[in-house]
Amino acid sequence: MAKIRLGILGGGNDSLIGILHRVAANMFEQFEITGGVFNVDHDKSLNFGERLGLDRSRVYKNLEEMIRQEKELPEDKRIQAVSILTPNFLHYPMAKQLLENGFHVICEKPLTTTLQEARILNEIQAESNSIFAVTYTYTGYPMIRQMKSMIANGEIGSIQKIDVQYYQGWINPLIHDKDKRSATWRLDPEKSGISCCIGDIGTHAFNMAEYVSGMKVEKILADLNYLYEDNPMDIDGTVLLRFGENVKGVLRASQIATGEENNFTVQIYGDKGGLKWEQENPNYLYLLKEDQALQVLKPGHAFLSDFSLEGTKLPPGHPEGIFDSMGNIYYGVAMAIKDKVKYTGAYPTLGDGLRGMSFIEKTVSSHKQGNIWIKMQD
Amino acid sequence: MAKIRLGILGGGNDSLIGILHRVAANMFEQFEITGGVFNVDHDKSLNFGERLGLDRSRVYKNLEEMIRQEKELPEDKRIQAVSILTPNFLHYPMAKQLLENGFHVICEKPLTTTLQEARILNEIQAESNSIFAVTYTYTGYPMIRQMKSMIANGEIGSIQKIDVQYYQGWINPLIHDKDKRSATWRLDPEKSGISCCIGDIGTHAFNMAEYVSGMKVEKILADLNYLYEDNPMDIDGTVLLRFGENVKGVLRASQIATGEENNFTVQIYGDKGGLKWEQENPNYLYLLKEDQALQVLKPGHAFLSDFSLEGTKLPPGHPEGIFDSMGNIYYGVAMAIKDKVKYTGAYPTLGDGLRGMSFIEKTVSSHKQGNIWIKMQD
Amino acid sequence: MAKIRLGILGGGNDSLIGILHRVAANMFEQFEITGGVFNVDHDKSLNFGERLGLDRSRVYKNLEEMIRQEKELPEDKRIQAVSILTPNFLHYPMAKQLLENGFHVICEKPLTTTLQEARILNEIQAESNSIFAVTYTYTGYPMIRQMKSMIANGEIGSIQKIDVQYYQGWINPLIHDKDKRSATWRLDPEKSGISCCIGDIGTHAFNMAEYVSGMKVEKILADLNYLYEDNPMDIDGTVLLRFGENVKGVLRASQIATGEENNFTVQIYGDKGGLKWEQENPNYLYLLKEDQALQVLKPGHAFLSDFSLEGTKLPPGHPEGIFDSMGNIYYGVAMAIKDKVKYTGAYPTLGDGLRGMSFIEKTVSSHKQGNIWIKMQD
Amino acid sequence: MAKIRLGILGGGNDSLIGILHRVAANMFEQFEITGGVFNVDHDKSLNFGERLGLDRSRVYKNLEEMIRQEKELPEDKRIQAVSILTPNFLHYPMAKQLLENGFHVICEKPLTTTLQEARILNEIQAESNSIFAVTYTYTGYPMIRQMKSMIANGEIGSIQKIDVQYYQGWINPLIHDKDKRSATWRLDPEKSGISCCIGDIGTHAFNMAEYVSGMKVEKILADLNYLYEDNPMDIDGTVLLRFGENVKGVLRASQIATGEENNFTVQIYGDKGGLKWEQENPNYLYLLKEDQALQVLKPGHAFLSDFSLEGTKLPPGHPEGIFDSMGNIYYGVAMAIKDKVKYTGAYPTLGDGLRGMSFIEKTVSSHKQGNIWIKMQD
Repeated sequence: MAKIRLGILGGGNDSLIGILHRVAANMFEQFEITGGVFNVDHDKSLNFGERLGLDRSRVYKNLEEMIRQEKELPEDKRIQAVSILTPNFLHYPMAKQLLENGFHVICEKPLTTTLQEARILNEIQAESNSIFAVTYTYTGYPMIRQMKSMIANGEIGSIQKIDVQYYQGWINPLIHDKDKRSATWRLDPEKSGISCCIGDIGTHAFNMAEYVSGMKVEKILADLNYLYEDNPMDIDGTVLLRFGENVKGVLRASQIATGEENNFTVQIYGDKGGLKWEQENPNYLYLLKEDQALQVLKPGHAFLSDFSLEGTKLPPGHPEGIFDSMGNIYYGVAMAIKDKVKYTGAYPTLGDGLRGMSFIEKTVSSHKQGNIWIKMQD
Repeated sequence: MAKIRLGILGGGNDSLIGILHRVAANMFEQFEITGGVFNVDHDKSLNFGERLGLDRSRVYKNLEEMIRQEKELPEDKRIQAVSILTPNFLHYPMAKQLLENGFHVICEKPLTTTLQEARILNEIQAESNSIFAVTYTYTGYPMIRQMKSMIANGEIGSIQKIDVQYYQGWINPLIHDKDKRSATWRLDPEKSGISCCIGDIGTHAFNMAEYVSGMKVEKILADLNYLYEDNPMDIDGTVLLRFGENVKGVLRASQIATGEENNFTVQIYGDKGGLKWEQENPNYLYLLKEDQALQVLKPGHAFLSDFSLEGTKLPPGHPEGIFDSMGNIYYGVAMAIKDKVKYTGAYPTLGDGLRGMSFIEKTVSSHKQGNIWIKMQD
Repeated sequence: MAKIRLGILGGGNDSLIGILHRVAANMFEQFEITGGVFNVDHDKSLNFGERLGLDRSRVYKNLEEMIRQEKELPEDKRIQAVSILTPNFLHYPMAKQLLENGFHVICEKPLTTTLQEARILNEIQAESNSIFAVTYTYTGYPMIRQMKSMIANGEIGSIQKIDVQYYQGWINPLIHDKDKRSATWRLDPEKSGISCCIGDIGTHAFNMAEYVSGMKVEKILADLNYLYEDNPMDIDGTVLLRFGENVKGVLRASQIATGEENNFTVQIYGDKGGLKWEQENPNYLYLLKEDQALQVLKPGHAFLSDFSLEGTKLPPGHPEGIFDSMGNIYYGVAMAIKDKVKYTGAYPTLGDGLRGMSFIEKTVSSHKQGNIWIKMQD
Repeated sequence: MAKIRLGILGGGNDSLIGILHRVAANMFEQFEITGGVFNVDHDKSLNFGERLGLDRSRVYKNLEEMIRQEKELPEDKRIQAVSILTPNFLHYPMAKQLLENGFHVICEKPLTTTLQEARILNEIQAESNSIFAVTYTYTGYPMIRQMKSMIANGEIGSIQKIDVQYYQGWINPLIHDKDKRSATWRLDPEKSGISCCIGDIGTHAFNMAEYVSGMKVEKILADLNYLYEDNPMDIDGTVLLRFGENVKGVLRASQIATGEENNFTVQIYGDKGGLKWEQENPNYLYLLKEDQALQVLKPGHAFLSDFSLEGTKLPPGHPEGIFDSMGNIYYGVAMAIKDKVKYTGAYPTLGDGLRGMSFIEKTVSSHKQGNIWIKMQD
């Protein structure tokens, strides 16, 4: 079966996110990178396209040109799906145009910069036939998929406690210097939206909590930290979560956890057991049961769920990393496109992105109103 | 120099807390267990005393008899310090009598069952010459002492984030059965005070946060979980902490984290680095620094602080456990008694116990008033 | 700059080694898979080529046809390098033809099935301009590269002890059943050469010991295990190593270490420190120094060597896996081809493959002669 | 029941081994330290006795006096068992006298300085009623006991591979300096016997291999390292082990593994599974089974063997250390004395010590004869 033709917006030069998406797209050999707009400077874009071995005619000046010209191509030549890797504020207008012109979309998170924009995209997609993925990258790890399968199968019983942590330290060297913090685009609401820490990493933790548990957060109470009065963006926060009447949780996120790299952890406890996972050691899933030995599940074993095994390409003992996780998401998108099934569970959806935007708004709102409970609506 | 004569209240038969205290008392050979009341049944108490090799005349019917008769002995024979290992509601009356009669006291936590009782003890001790220790056992670990020393010396700079977790799962098999939960003394306010989870383990985490950081919690906001309407005691909770204007923290405690044994962790981040520790692997202290390799400090090395080294008896590579930690606290008490110095920093004090009682009251109060901020006063 | 045109021999259908090489070839976007022979059945080969999106005219019936027709193409269209992923006994004849016709070669290990064949290839390459890599996959991990850099820079001083382990358990369920063991191709000398365990995984450990230490094994003494008299191939073994007069080492390999997955470890000690690494947790390198905290180095930090950093594509905290390791080897080959430099240190060479063949022969010989010392010659 | 009266030879002042034995003896409250000879200088010995709270009359000038005077005491006052903590060369004459006078003996390892002496002790004990323990300390860990129980119960089936490692780095800073190495008593054969590394730590590994597996080493082939010609004692070595026809093993020991503390590991594989343990993390036992999740067993759980549980005093999650391990050995000795059962399996015996001496002799002999196989005889 022919590969899916993929266009890319942004991610040129040495962009890290660019490499991540391209490796992921190539990993299962379901996509063929066909064209795109890699840079606002068209010459740079052309050079980059050449590096990728693309036909010059498929490297466009801008999205509008790309859409127009691709639509003139015969269907079996035309770009089918487009990855949006541009700065956050461009996600919305680009995704909107792509949806309106019948393309499938793979969009980096956060989906948009406001909840309102996310709602509009959601409405457009509902009426379209497009597959729309939001790349919450970490959901593609085989052991996260195993965790999701086990919880769905009742392995840990009724959930009674959900605890997610996402700690980084990268903003510490910037935040204590007035000049540096005011020059950082991540701390500029014009460029990054209303939240830094919750918007950037808190949403990953929020999405993961809902993704693996299969439960929805009903209300939240947030306590954020800005450290300096002149800093307009949160750089640390704790959010109390209520999933159901007696199912409580807590989400902790920080960018001032000095020395932490990308310490994202998930702990979920039910009345029959617990499951724990750490992003920095993604190939280990810990199953806790009363009066039994701790079990450490690792990828690739026959006793794992099909959903998990589908995401592992080599036998046990061959470590997988972040590329594999993103590769699994791209594979999920490819299958959805080929099977024409909109919601498969194998990739994070526009709906997940919308929930994320709602979470950001409610969290900042709870904090600013004095740490009060606020209901999640979407 | 002669050993300190130690009396013990409770802890007879196969009491676990009894073994822990006796091993700790013997460990540094500073104490000699001399007498006590090990059981309300005097015959059982006598049998137990025999097992310990005690003189029958020093095994008493009750505390009153013990105090009266010991005071009749010459000073160089008399019991000098007494460990209180009885059920919680007896801590207060026993400690009060002991203080009023000039004995040093080593009391299990929680110090009392109400904040009011704790305040009274505090006032009595302030006027006495007695040393009074509350056995927050985990503070005696060499790597906790190292953590405290490093923070005090500025190794991680100004603290900006404090995160403590204490997760257990032991109450899960009881809580979902109406008969079992109503028959558990831990869930009976008459016997355990107003809080189960926060009172039993949350206070350990609270004490540790203040102990290692050298900072005081100023206010708290708590969200507790009782799971069932007929259950009067919290079994899980998250508490937002405010240490200073911009120093925030979070304390998480649970007894329904199914499958967890005694998963108590401390993570503290400053503007110059971070420090992390886990009780179940107590011989490892993790030092995180920007753009440096992660450092794993282990006990017994010459580069550690004197305070840490004092608590390690063997060369590096010989694992220490919970007995060693309690042994260090007993040693700290012994030194305080011998040196006649009331507050040395080497053992948790009555003041720490009082803070703990205050924390329990404020936490329950915050939760019951709808998860609002409440100031710590003591 | 244009991508290098890559041909592939074998690795079709769901071959695991096929996926590993293709992902690696694509990872840094230096290669373009252009053609090959993926299956002895030409129809299957054509189908597979279609799956990869290849031009049918570049999917050949056999190697001879491929060489002939590719050489008729203009130089800027012609396949430049070829990956050999076929069964072991085909490595030699294929590599020979490719070298003789001016192609660069990337060959799976073991290089050949006999030492004699390896020597012939070595002589041919010496006279050619071809780059020749043997894919000792694990040498491409960033932390292995860091280990190599640190040892070369004297970080651990003069080496005095080298210890490598490669334990797997996969042959246990086969070996104890006479029918199963006689039906396994890995245990058939016709198909696998003279050694199973040492040939398959012992050579990895041997190569790694020499690669990271920069030292050469001078002589060996081996004790192998065959478990059953009718089993002609070793499935476990320990090899004493002598690197220099007083530099001793030991290599342990097993395929009957039941339950082990791919437990390959490297421990090297010098007079100034030690370095340790485990393949199943490849992103951690442990540096041991006397009277210093244990240091755990992780990929992507600025303080690492350039050689290590070149192999890491994302910031710290984004785990890398086996694909990344192989990707780095392919990248090393690409740079060598582009720069026309034969031996760069950035990929394992034909010489390494030759050493590996020699090691296999000497090891089996030492064992069969009664566990005596034998000199390595090549 | 009355405590067993214990005498101690050596271990005075701040002797580390002294603390270890006293804490262990006190831990289960089965022994009462009654007297001894703590120092060759009688005044120092008396001072130390006072520190322990002993009666001056039980602090003796030398062993002869101690034996003579104790034997004059009534049986219910007399010292029953004696711990020998003196330098190695004194073990033999002291143990001999004690056995000949009817005392039970607890002797530090190595049992003697020559195999011949060990044989003599063995013969004397065979005719006596004395319990004789050799303190291979690490055998007392609860998870080692669990490992032993599981192997005995067939949990991992027939053993096919045994791998033990004991790596330390402490001799590195001494060995490269001619003056330092010649001044170290550990490297003086007069004081330490014929072997340093194998004698000191290799014997631990050897004993452990036999203890947990229940198998006996039949022959060995050793390759030792002395590093310098003027150094008379091995400081590193690898020993090939043969347990039965096809059961092979390997023992690695080093004191020049720079930076290692006390890295003693045991890996045993059978045809039904594998078991692994590390001394520096003694509370974790790893059970490997084909196609099952890795299991991590921890102390104190009801599903563990009685033998393991007997050695754990607190509930799961309360870490145990080296004192607990030695405490369990002392407890085993106490039970043997009380029950008058000579060989209970709960403590290492004189026979184990004898095997250890034999192992040292054969190992050095194998090495000196050119790394040849030598049969173990005792």
